[in-house]
Amino acid sequence: MRLLARLLEPKATAYAHCDLPCGVYDPAQARIEAESVKAISQKYQDSNDPAYQTRALIIKEQRSELVKHHLWVLWTDYFKPPHFERYPHLHTLFNEATKLAGAAGTKGSADVAKAEELLAKIEEINKIFWETKQG
Amino acid sequence: MRLLARLLEPKATAYAHCDLPCGVYDPAQARIEAESVKAISQKYQDSNDPAYQTRALIIKEQRSELVKHHLWVLWTDYFKPPHFERYPHLHTLFNEATKLAGAAGTKGSADVAKAEELLAKIEEINKIFWETKQG
Amino acid sequence: MRLLARLLEPKATAYAHCDLPCGVYDPAQARIEAESVKAISQKYQDSNDPAYQTRALIIKEQRSELVKHHLWVLWTDYFKPPHFERYPHLHTLFNEATKLAGAAGTKGSADVAKAEELLAKIEEINKIFWETKQG
Amino acid sequence: MRLLARLLEPKATAYAHCDLPCGVYDPAQARIEAESVKAISQKYQDSNDPAYQTRALIIKEQRSELVKHHLWVLWTDYFKPPHFERYPHLHTLFNEATKLAGAAGTKGSADVAKAEELLAKIEEINKIFWETKQG
Amino acid sequence: MRLLARLLEPKATAYAHCDLPCGVYDPAQARIEAESVKAISQKYQDSNDPAYQTRALIIKEQRSELVKHHLWVLWTDYFKPPHFERYPHLHTLFNEATKLAGAAGTKGSADVAKAEELLAKIEEINKIFWETKQG
Amino acid sequence: MRLLARLLEPKATAYAHCDLPCGVYDPAQARIEAESVKAISQKYQDSNDPAYQTRALIIKEQRSELVKHHLWVLWTDYFKPPHFERYPHLHTLFNEATKLAGAAGTKGSADVAKAEELLAKIEEINKIFWETKQG
Repeated sequence: MRLLARLLEPKATAYAHCDLPCGVYDPAQARIEAESVKAISQKYQDSNDPAYQTRALIIKEQRSELVKHHLWVLWTDYFKPPHFERYPHLHTLFNEATKLAGAAGTKGSADVAKAEELLAKIEEINKIFWETKQG
Repeated sequence: MRLLARLLEPKATAYAHCDLPCGVYDPAQARIEAESVKAISQKYQDSNDPAYQTRALIIKEQRSELVKHHLWVLWTDYFKPPHFERYPHLHTLFNEATKLAGAAGTKGSADVAKAEELLAKIEEINKIFWETKQG
Repeated sequence: MRLLARLLEPKATAYAHCDLPCGVYDPAQARIEAESVKAISQKYQDSNDPAYQTRALIIKEQRSELVKHHLWVLWTDYFKPPHFERYPHLHTLFNEATKLAGAAGTKGSADVAKAEELLAKIEEINKIFWETKQG
Repeated sequence: MRLLARLLEPKATAYAHCDLPCGVYDPAQARIEAESVKAISQKYQDSNDPAYQTRALIIKEQRSELVKHHLWVLWTDYFKPPHFERYPHLHTLFNEATKLAGAAGTKGSADVAKAEELLAKIEEINKIFWETKQG
Repeated sequence: MRLLARLLEPKATAYAHCDLPCGVYDPAQARIEAESVKAISQKYQDSNDPAYQTRALIIKEQRSELVKHHLWVLWTDYFKPPHFERYPHLHTLFNEATKLAGAAGTKGSADVAKAEELLAKIEEINKIFWETKQG
Repeated sequence: MRLLARLLEPKATAYAHCDLPCGVYDPAQARIEAESVKAISQKYQDSNDPAYQTRALIIKEQRSELVKHHLWVLWTDYFKPPHFERYPHLHTLFNEATKLAGAAGTKGSADVAKAEELLAKIEEINKIFWETKQG
């Protein structure tokens, strides 16, 4: 069982922002919170307890804000002018992604589909991020 | 190049804590911040600029606190009594890991070796976490 | 009147965590927030104003999180391996207490009884804490 | 030993602010952090390790800010106009106390004496607080 | 169009608190958040969507807390004893203003009128602030 | 004297972000913190007390982070696609401004000139912001 567990375990090299700079970043931080937002939205939809739903809205607000923060940090601290030249749509992609985690996105809506939109945008960013890591 | 990038990209299913509960957790959150602490410690050692080193200490303090928080959340919100029965050393492992991110660990020391100790503890927790995910 | 007030006034030596370490801790910090959670829960029950109840849920969420934090700090920063040997159930006690301040406890419930359970757990911790202060 | 421990244990009824209002307050919260500031200042004085001293300054800044916050909350959320009439110097006392936890006080100084000044001010507030609790 | 825009643009010299002290303060910080509270209250009144209203309460709670904080900072860090002598009602004015941003004010109420009361108090403080800047 | 004070007082209509959306924004929030960063940098340069300088670095780090946050909020929550079309350099302007408040800017440097660069960028954003307010 242990071997199976190890094989299935994600190989996630962790990166984090600290603005020293420490040179350590990973879109997983944003995606982690967005996965949480999606799960919260699903539970909100499945519940018929108003108090539970209120808690879901409270927490969804917080996790969505964290998504915005992690994305902003990547946009400002990781990506550099050469990246923006190579990917001319990158600014727009980040602007759309952060909007999708805000009032017009997962903050203002408890639709699971909205959270999936956000995750899709983060995945686009993630692809570009790993391409820039290769060179 | 794109294919290579995609193959090398970590497959990290994101998990996050939100205490709704949303059922979404991942030790990657703790490991991400610990990788940051390690990078900061290395930069501290390599620098001979006192102002830069002060910034490194400020930021290392913050990231270490985040490691503690992410670990505490796993210990309280993810792991359940059956897990603690199956892994009798799990409480101690978490207690040691969180101590390693504190005053007696990466907060109080800028040694890269101390950060590596912390990462090793997190990896032990990570192994157990994924085993419990399998069943 | 003044004399009476002074006699009735709690003699609380204050201890706080700061992870320097400063050697200053007190379970009163956790208990204070748990008393608040209990009072909020009571007011939630007594109210029939939905907006007021929503505020109560918002604030109960925050104060419960503070209870978790103060307990985690005691568990990691104050208690040492000799304590855990002397009190073999101490890890479990802390794990149960922090769970009682979370989704399965005072976060997820507005029952006053749940808050009283939490206060009882904190009192158990408090007893042990003061015993360790004696020797 | 246990009996002795219980007798010596502080009887601290916990009060906390949450602005619901939950009616739960205690100057112990401010005093707890001020005790921490005093301990940090002492350790700063006793140390000749610049990195340790830097950490002490970082943490003293944070704990001092918490003292200010807890005092402000008492001044705004607990004390009412009748109290300010009964104790005409109360506004000034709070203003002086919060200043003592700021740049001109324990933030800007690592003197233990400054922290003791702050604790003395908090004790004056504490006396008045418990008098108002009596009637 | 540009000239018109520039003429209509507010000439706001920005001041901020940081307790170094940096000598930089402005009641605009408190007023900014209070304007936000007023707008949120209006939107709450205009909405018939319970989820939207819940979000409004969550955010109004946060922005109201920020109003309290900015006011407390002015009261403690900017205003000095000579100011309190020149304006004997200044303590009371600040105490009333911070109460107006709390449970008995904009936190506990979604009435636009309550937010306008708060803005009026802040304007009184603002007048005095600029008088003290002149001499 | 009072009339003079009132004439000289800035007419700052306050805007704030809250992501409800409340429709209330103002670059003054970012500029206020940047003014603070500039003042802190000047005091750092003028001081020869290492403890004071350490405090300056701690606080400059915090205020710089607030500048980044306020700018990110404007970029994501206020500015819309039509604005980005009208001002094709707006994304780049925001990216440069937020970088100037980070490790390569006012966080990593205590030069007053760096803070002035940041203020100049914020002023460019401010101009555009008020133009969009006009239509």
